[in-house]
Amino acid sequence: MPDVRAALRAQRIETPSWAYANSGTRFKVFSQAGVPRDPYEKIADAATVHRFTGVAPTVSLHYPWDAVDDFGKLAAYAQDLGVTLGVVNSNVFQDDDYKLGSVTNPDPRVRRKATDHLLACVDVMDATGSQDLKLWFSDGTNYPGQDDIRSRQDRLAAALREVYDRLGDDQRILLEYKLFEPAFYTTDVPDWGTAYAHTLELGPKAQVVIDTGHHAPGTNIEFIVAFLLRQAKLGAFDFNSRFYADDDLMAGAADPFQLFRIMYEIVRGGALDPASGITFMLDQCHNIEAKIPAIIRSVTNIQEATAKALIVDGDALAAAQAQGDVLAANAVFMDAFSSDVRPLLAEIRAEQGLDPDPHAAYKRSGYAEKIVAERIGGVQAGWGA
Amino acid sequence: MPDVRAALRAQRIETPSWAYANSGTRFKVFSQAGVPRDPYEKIADAATVHRFTGVAPTVSLHYPWDAVDDFGKLAAYAQDLGVTLGVVNSNVFQDDDYKLGSVTNPDPRVRRKATDHLLACVDVMDATGSQDLKLWFSDGTNYPGQDDIRSRQDRLAAALREVYDRLGDDQRILLEYKLFEPAFYTTDVPDWGTAYAHTLELGPKAQVVIDTGHHAPGTNIEFIVAFLLRQAKLGAFDFNSRFYADDDLMAGAADPFQLFRIMYEIVRGGALDPASGITFMLDQCHNIEAKIPAIIRSVTNIQEATAKALIVDGDALAAAQAQGDVLAANAVFMDAFSSDVRPLLAEIRAEQGLDPDPHAAYKRSGYAEKIVAERIGGVQAGWGA
Amino acid sequence: MPDVRAALRAQRIETPSWAYANSGTRFKVFSQAGVPRDPYEKIADAATVHRFTGVAPTVSLHYPWDAVDDFGKLAAYAQDLGVTLGVVNSNVFQDDDYKLGSVTNPDPRVRRKATDHLLACVDVMDATGSQDLKLWFSDGTNYPGQDDIRSRQDRLAAALREVYDRLGDDQRILLEYKLFEPAFYTTDVPDWGTAYAHTLELGPKAQVVIDTGHHAPGTNIEFIVAFLLRQAKLGAFDFNSRFYADDDLMAGAADPFQLFRIMYEIVRGGALDPASGITFMLDQCHNIEAKIPAIIRSVTNIQEATAKALIVDGDALAAAQAQGDVLAANAVFMDAFSSDVRPLLAEIRAEQGLDPDPHAAYKRSGYAEKIVAERIGGVQAGWGA
Amino acid sequence: MPDVRAALRAQRIETPSWAYANSGTRFKVFSQAGVPRDPYEKIADAATVHRFTGVAPTVSLHYPWDAVDDFGKLAAYAQDLGVTLGVVNSNVFQDDDYKLGSVTNPDPRVRRKATDHLLACVDVMDATGSQDLKLWFSDGTNYPGQDDIRSRQDRLAAALREVYDRLGDDQRILLEYKLFEPAFYTTDVPDWGTAYAHTLELGPKAQVVIDTGHHAPGTNIEFIVAFLLRQAKLGAFDFNSRFYADDDLMAGAADPFQLFRIMYEIVRGGALDPASGITFMLDQCHNIEAKIPAIIRSVTNIQEATAKALIVDGDALAAAQAQGDVLAANAVFMDAFSSDVRPLLAEIRAEQGLDPDPHAAYKRSGYAEKIVAERIGGVQAGWGA
Repeated sequence: MPDVRAALRAQRIETPSWAYANSGTRFKVFSQAGVPRDPYEKIADAATVHRFTGVAPTVSLHYPWDAVDDFGKLAAYAQDLGVTLGVVNSNVFQDDDYKLGSVTNPDPRVRRKATDHLLACVDVMDATGSQDLKLWFSDGTNYPGQDDIRSRQDRLAAALREVYDRLGDDQRILLEYKLFEPAFYTTDVPDWGTAYAHTLELGPKAQVVIDTGHHAPGTNIEFIVAFLLRQAKLGAFDFNSRFYADDDLMAGAADPFQLFRIMYEIVRGGALDPASGITFMLDQCHNIEAKIPAIIRSVTNIQEATAKALIVDGDALAAAQAQGDVLAANAVFMDAFSSDVRPLLAEIRAEQGLDPDPHAAYKRSGYAEKIVAERIGGVQAGWGA
Repeated sequence: MPDVRAALRAQRIETPSWAYANSGTRFKVFSQAGVPRDPYEKIADAATVHRFTGVAPTVSLHYPWDAVDDFGKLAAYAQDLGVTLGVVNSNVFQDDDYKLGSVTNPDPRVRRKATDHLLACVDVMDATGSQDLKLWFSDGTNYPGQDDIRSRQDRLAAALREVYDRLGDDQRILLEYKLFEPAFYTTDVPDWGTAYAHTLELGPKAQVVIDTGHHAPGTNIEFIVAFLLRQAKLGAFDFNSRFYADDDLMAGAADPFQLFRIMYEIVRGGALDPASGITFMLDQCHNIEAKIPAIIRSVTNIQEATAKALIVDGDALAAAQAQGDVLAANAVFMDAFSSDVRPLLAEIRAEQGLDPDPHAAYKRSGYAEKIVAERIGGVQAGWGA
Repeated sequence: MPDVRAALRAQRIETPSWAYANSGTRFKVFSQAGVPRDPYEKIADAATVHRFTGVAPTVSLHYPWDAVDDFGKLAAYAQDLGVTLGVVNSNVFQDDDYKLGSVTNPDPRVRRKATDHLLACVDVMDATGSQDLKLWFSDGTNYPGQDDIRSRQDRLAAALREVYDRLGDDQRILLEYKLFEPAFYTTDVPDWGTAYAHTLELGPKAQVVIDTGHHAPGTNIEFIVAFLLRQAKLGAFDFNSRFYADDDLMAGAADPFQLFRIMYEIVRGGALDPASGITFMLDQCHNIEAKIPAIIRSVTNIQEATAKALIVDGDALAAAQAQGDVLAANAVFMDAFSSDVRPLLAEIRAEQGLDPDPHAAYKRSGYAEKIVAERIGGVQAGWGA
Repeated sequence: MPDVRAALRAQRIETPSWAYANSGTRFKVFSQAGVPRDPYEKIADAATVHRFTGVAPTVSLHYPWDAVDDFGKLAAYAQDLGVTLGVVNSNVFQDDDYKLGSVTNPDPRVRRKATDHLLACVDVMDATGSQDLKLWFSDGTNYPGQDDIRSRQDRLAAALREVYDRLGDDQRILLEYKLFEPAFYTTDVPDWGTAYAHTLELGPKAQVVIDTGHHAPGTNIEFIVAFLLRQAKLGAFDFNSRFYADDDLMAGAADPFQLFRIMYEIVRGGALDPASGITFMLDQCHNIEAKIPAIIRSVTNIQEATAKALIVDGDALAAAQAQGDVLAANAVFMDAFSSDVRPLLAEIRAEQGLDPDPHAAYKRSGYAEKIVAERIGGVQAGWGA
């Protein structure tokens, strides 16, 4: 399986700076000892994940959560630790001004402020060398009649256009959609169709982000993956998992078979190849479990799903599909999923000079104890308010 | 309220031939006395609905369920009864060949057969003078791996293109989407985004149909209405209502507030005007209730929702929205919904020479007893097998 | 309609102290000017709602959010303002100890602490004269395997028993259920069946609470109302509304027809009568709208749904149901819902010496401006952390 | 792993007679060559499944679908083929009389007829030696107001009592629940809580059936398993799988991880042991795939999930749970799921004299070709109308 091994070696998964910080629900944020207190400590944790997995060499930033005086210095610090800064995530949902929306707010002053923030994010990208601006808007309404659905689309389109026109040649907008939360009646970018239509109108430097936790119950996510790849409009993934809503659990924890099906469509559509330009990120909240090992687990879960997707017997599958043999085609597909790919991944890690078991290696490393001991005083970084 | 009255007088709702026939679930089709035995009797029932409501002058056909030797004769018969033939619905889901799909079937012979049927539907349109071809595909898969998701899209696109190119100058394709059923893993046109992308690629004579029962739980349908109107890609509605899945209950029966919100976006987007080219149809199954009065009830439910949408105080709403006054805006909106518009509709009917109460008038008319007495022998028309 | 008027005059709706405080989502809590800074100010706001609606004479407390040195003094303060203290709500979800559960925590020390808190709540009830202890447990797990589902039930049962045995003769446990959030894999009391089984085993002083936002999509809540009333195990309601999950919007805002159907089952089951012992509470979050007028709106929404439920023509409905006339029965039911009951409610208010329009009256009263001016400094009460 | 092997050898899965017959959706029943034409041929197919799997020695009957003149003769025929007759399933949903319900119908004549049918099913059990009567009621309503929810419960309770009192000493009622379909507004036994309450009132010979496809989206089924086992009220399983509603796909096809979690709770609760009295059945529809191999696949899917549940390291899991180590506990659990248990199952089959690969063995056997050749003429058995 030379290609399988090569593909697994080439796979890249970006981890999010905020997943190393405290997070929670509206009911409670439980704090954890050793959590980072600034962007530098987040980077250090991300570098640790990369050290043990070998496939997580980039870190997503969230602005202004990760604002620093000198982004060049932060980038250099990352480089020293063996990682680089990745996607820049805008944040237009945590200022009191954004109560009724950011770029879709009925108040033009607030829209201006929000759009300016997005433009500032591009400045950050220029400083960090990041190529992708990920846009998630919490904008929406809670009550029927609260605002005009269509006018909000017009406002959204205007802001997106302004930001798009500010992009450099190698920069992209990644537009994220989400069904609900924090808006509970309408959301201004609720589904992939809306994100698709806007990115199509914007142009080739705008693409859609699929967050695996942002859909209505029953939505077939792998269909969306296949469809957006066919339309050449899939730009990135936010991986996480959910049983109910946007639960933001570890990727692969809730429905590993779904993750396998998604990875299969990625492989099928040629999107695993880093040259495809599709960015694979985690976007999770580790509310009750330790953060770094939870991220390592998420990474290995994705690796396992990917390995299973890669070992699907394509010839046998195509033959069964062409003959309309439902059971044979399903059996070929399930055969890959039922396989235990952990030995294969362990081998590949060993070949790369990594510990074959990143979980045990991290545990033995003492890093967890070290950060608990060292990160005393200061204010822990939080995902929420 | 001259405009409100004018708008209500001008409203048009098309009724579907198959709703007059027997229908049911996979568990049982309960037959009802007096049900039509052929397309002519269906037309007679539809004309009866129009006689009592005054707003249902057209009838959707389903081909081949409504196949007759001479469609010109059927059209003339309809005309004699005061109605005309409307949208033609294709049927590529009831032949044994379509077990694994119609236009997306892995077998090219079946795809050819299905596409030929769609082309034949355009021939029927030429004969009946219908302008719209409504395409609903039950195509999809039941098991992961069963077929290639992306290849099925390519096959779908090819068939749609062929049919599109066959359309006359005044003819349109109306492409319907549905989340699931009868396919239980993937559906080839599962959501509005997929229908939108295909109709966009086809051209201006292709539009999207919204069936109000075809969404995932929690989907905000009025958002889709507003968005597709903004994109000028909304072609038609299939009204019905549901509590769970595609229940196909009477329009307005399950969530009258949702129907009001949908009609508000239609009014807001200028789509109520018959000149907008948007076709408003019912698509329902009256499994346990009498068919004709159920359709009359559905029509009056839509009229009531429309009347409420029309009386929303637009100036007050816009002012509250502009000020970001959430409660005031919601109150203006709810004030319209809480109003009893039945007296207004009764007045309008009386002005038009109709009985102000179509339900009582139908009951008194003796039509129900007449069809039970007359339609003896023969085979009742069925919606299913 | 003498009975309708009498029933509406006798209706009682309890408002929750925490709904007057700031609330939000995990993304952001937006603060509002004039929000209470202590339990006394919350009581003052609740008394204001009662002053304008006349049907909200009691206030639910949340302990320890509403902890004061002297509950007798708080009760006396309430009395002076024309209201009394109602249900006591326990809180075992906001201490770091409760990260993995409270009474179901694997650690016996934490279970002891949580149970002691519940017992302390009964002490508060003794001090305030409250008869009801409402128990909502956020307990559950986020990951498969995290804890043993069945052992957690055993722990839950043990804690409930201990608290039950502590109750005075006139005191009750009201056990609440919720599908998910903040737990994202299992919840220890996820549905009415679980709450029913536990309260049945506990005895007659334990009853089930229905929170209208705590169900899986598609759940028929009025069925649960009817069923629990038949089993004599319905103790209370938490009203609010939702489009997606536990959105906690204003009661009646998302699906007024559902609220009507629920109120119909309450009337049908004889539960509206205060003598039935069923407590009707609001439990909402006014994240973006002004709190007091939002609560007034919720109260009047419930009143309108109740009035509609009361005017259903019971004889006509029973006759149609007995004859199996689906459409006639539905028409009788919908006739009540389609009626505008606001004039009736205005009349009843006027008879009671209230302003017929509580919304306008509150607005004119200057209370909103007064609290904004007066409540300067200090820390606003918050629902969350 | 001696216990694991012993448990897998002792496992029993009952297959349903109707799954060998044609089935479909309301849109179309696709017929398959070789499908049984009478109960004898269904038994022959079931015996074939047992011949290749070794764990499916009993067959569920559906009455009157499987009505024969002489049930003793049918039982003897089964015995000759190495299988025995299992659970008897009543059918009170396919007669025109049941349009508005069976035992909950507003018409007492229909209720009498339905109850008599249930009593006749017990007669069948006496004749076949079956111990279990499985009751699924399609009863419910489609429209608000259509019938009185509470009266329907009273009627249901009366019918259940009459049937319960007719049971022999070794006979049981297994009461099934289902959220919706074919009823689309209320269902009279919609959830496990309703079934639990009724079976509790009936007595120890009444138990609840869990059909894995009969829940609202997001319902945690393994919680219900654990809870009902704790209450000693779980009587049986209907296995199948679903992505959307009651899709009735092959067990394990849609979410193999969920099936594993369910089997884990079964193992955890001691319910796998045949002595526990819990009956494990399939209840599926093979609309588009070949029936016998689909059932073999379902059986092996359940075996694989069971094997994974059995190899969970219980000591390690309990230790991690007791320490509140979320990630360690989850890792132990996932380790079992990630394992490939197919070699183990192949070994066990070989030890029992079976072919290690039942799928290949069935294919090679020529049985499929034989029934296609022999079952010519006559009317194929159908699941639906």
